[in-house]
Amino acid sequence: MGADLRYAVIGTGALGGFYGARLQRAGAEVHYLLRSDYDHVKENGLAVESPDGNFTLPEVYAYSDAQKMPPCDVAIVALKTTQNHLLSSVLPPLTETGVVLVLQNGLGVEAQAAELVGSDRVLGGLCFLCSNKVGPGHIRHLDYKKIAMGEYRADQSAGGVTERLEAIAQDFERADIPIERAEDLVLARWKKLMWNIPFNGLSVILNATTDAMMSDDNARTLAEILMEEVRQGASSQGRTVPAAFTQTMLDHTAAMKPYRTSMKIDYDERRPLEVEAMYGAPVRAAQAQGVVLPHIETLYHQLKFLDQQNRQG
Amino acid sequence: MGADLRYAVIGTGALGGFYGARLQRAGAEVHYLLRSDYDHVKENGLAVESPDGNFTLPEVYAYSDAQKMPPCDVAIVALKTTQNHLLSSVLPPLTETGVVLVLQNGLGVEAQAAELVGSDRVLGGLCFLCSNKVGPGHIRHLDYKKIAMGEYRADQSAGGVTERLEAIAQDFERADIPIERAEDLVLARWKKLMWNIPFNGLSVILNATTDAMMSDDNARTLAEILMEEVRQGASSQGRTVPAAFTQTMLDHTAAMKPYRTSMKIDYDERRPLEVEAMYGAPVRAAQAQGVVLPHIETLYHQLKFLDQQNRQG
Repeated sequence: MGADLRYAVIGTGALGGFYGARLQRAGAEVHYLLRSDYDHVKENGLAVESPDGNFTLPEVYAYSDAQKMPPCDVAIVALKTTQNHLLSSVLPPLTETGVVLVLQNGLGVEAQAAELVGSDRVLGGLCFLCSNKVGPGHIRHLDYKKIAMGEYRADQSAGGVTERLEAIAQDFERADIPIERAEDLVLARWKKLMWNIPFNGLSVILNATTDAMMSDDNARTLAEILMEEVRQGASSQGRTVPAAFTQTMLDHTAAMKPYRTSMKIDYDERRPLEVEAMYGAPVRAAQAQGVVLPHIETLYHQLKFLDQQNRQG
Repeated sequence: MGADLRYAVIGTGALGGFYGARLQRAGAEVHYLLRSDYDHVKENGLAVESPDGNFTLPEVYAYSDAQKMPPCDVAIVALKTTQNHLLSSVLPPLTETGVVLVLQNGLGVEAQAAELVGSDRVLGGLCFLCSNKVGPGHIRHLDYKKIAMGEYRADQSAGGVTERLEAIAQDFERADIPIERAEDLVLARWKKLMWNIPFNGLSVILNATTDAMMSDDNARTLAEILMEEVRQGASSQGRTVPAAFTQTMLDHTAAMKPYRTSMKIDYDERRPLEVEAMYGAPVRAAQAQGVVLPHIETLYHQLKFLDQQNRQG
């Protein structure tokens, strides 16, 4: 990797579009892969609204075909996990030291990329971001933006903070994106699941925003039970999420503005839900270690059913 | 108890109206307590549509005040369990050997009656009935009608088949209602929960009819998991529901016509759901024996939330 990293953004939507545009505005060379928005973005570039200040990038490197992209140092996968089976056809060529950075929720989401480029060339990241795409190439950033980023290891061990991780982190920080360098990506993923498993799933199943859940004894109790079960899941993988983290997450959620989760937005828009990465993979990972996560398993089956019905209807 | 039992029906709706009218048509003396339908039924009697044949009872003993009812031998409680806190004001006077017959789903539903009349004067029954009230004093019976009936015991032991149980059973059978004499009411209740816990709850949470659930892998798998957990719950109370019963229930449900459960109908009509009797009580009974029922507990909290929201909205 040279000093100036060349980025590819695979999936230029609410998440990929936001981070890509911020990197480009900060001086990085960014190449965007698009599907439905290709013509519009090729012509008009990207527009970002944000509490940090609105900006537009009238000219961007836009592609509709990954094979036409130049070799990149960092290919940011910003697709939903439900599209990871398409990865082989949407990854750009990589430079000799190029890596794939999988910015997705859930567990086991790096496996597909690792199969394609080798497990020593994959990093993962968890985005704490509230952002929507409101039109072609038009992103509305609402709140948060931090990323927890770490090295992927095929054996699920902690990868530590490598030079290449540091270089990427610094590029993001130059774009004013706070980066948590995760020594242990697996632990970072389970910590993110502490929030995602209760609130994403229940928001769909109970048709509720975070404030409605937090102000109801039963929903809040169930969220807490689910968080405790996530901790047990982490523990089955040799990771310790401190008990106090449950209360931290609850307090944090109680303090949030009423929030429709990303899974609820997907559901309302009749898009596929990330049930496998967020519920199926954790349940199976724990089960492989002989640990049952029955409350999470209940949500898994319920969400699979609702997702299926939602997209039939 | 004399040879001719005098019956009271407390709650003359889809269930109480159906069984009361059948008993009366077969020659029993039946007294009906009504609330909103009192004026209409006092004037016009009861009308029952049924695959067994339609019939009307132009004259019935109708009451709006339980204290005005004559002493009865059998007071049939046909209210929803959500109204059991009102029982003290709606029970009629009983004859010296009179009993209360609680025709309700769930667990622990006889406790309120036992407190009022003594635990040695209470029987319980589980109705396998598909029936709706379609207008004042107008009942539409759709399918099934069997009752499993047994003696209540304060110590939860099996009460056996007593003479008074036999006498009541024969009255119902004269009215062409099949009666299963349950030697062990607690076991009968857990067996009924084998169906009610998965299908009533999931029909509300997943907004689905029985056929939609049975034809989906995830919903069917979750129903099966829940049934296995009901078996564990029964086991915690010293009751054995045979493993094969799960498959029997699944086959039975698959063979049913598409069915909107009674809890789903209550939910759609914004009536209170019987969550405590059907989910809370079994979870707590098992917990008291050190047995956790986590899948059922998940449904419990979800249903409590949905019920709450549903009646606020």
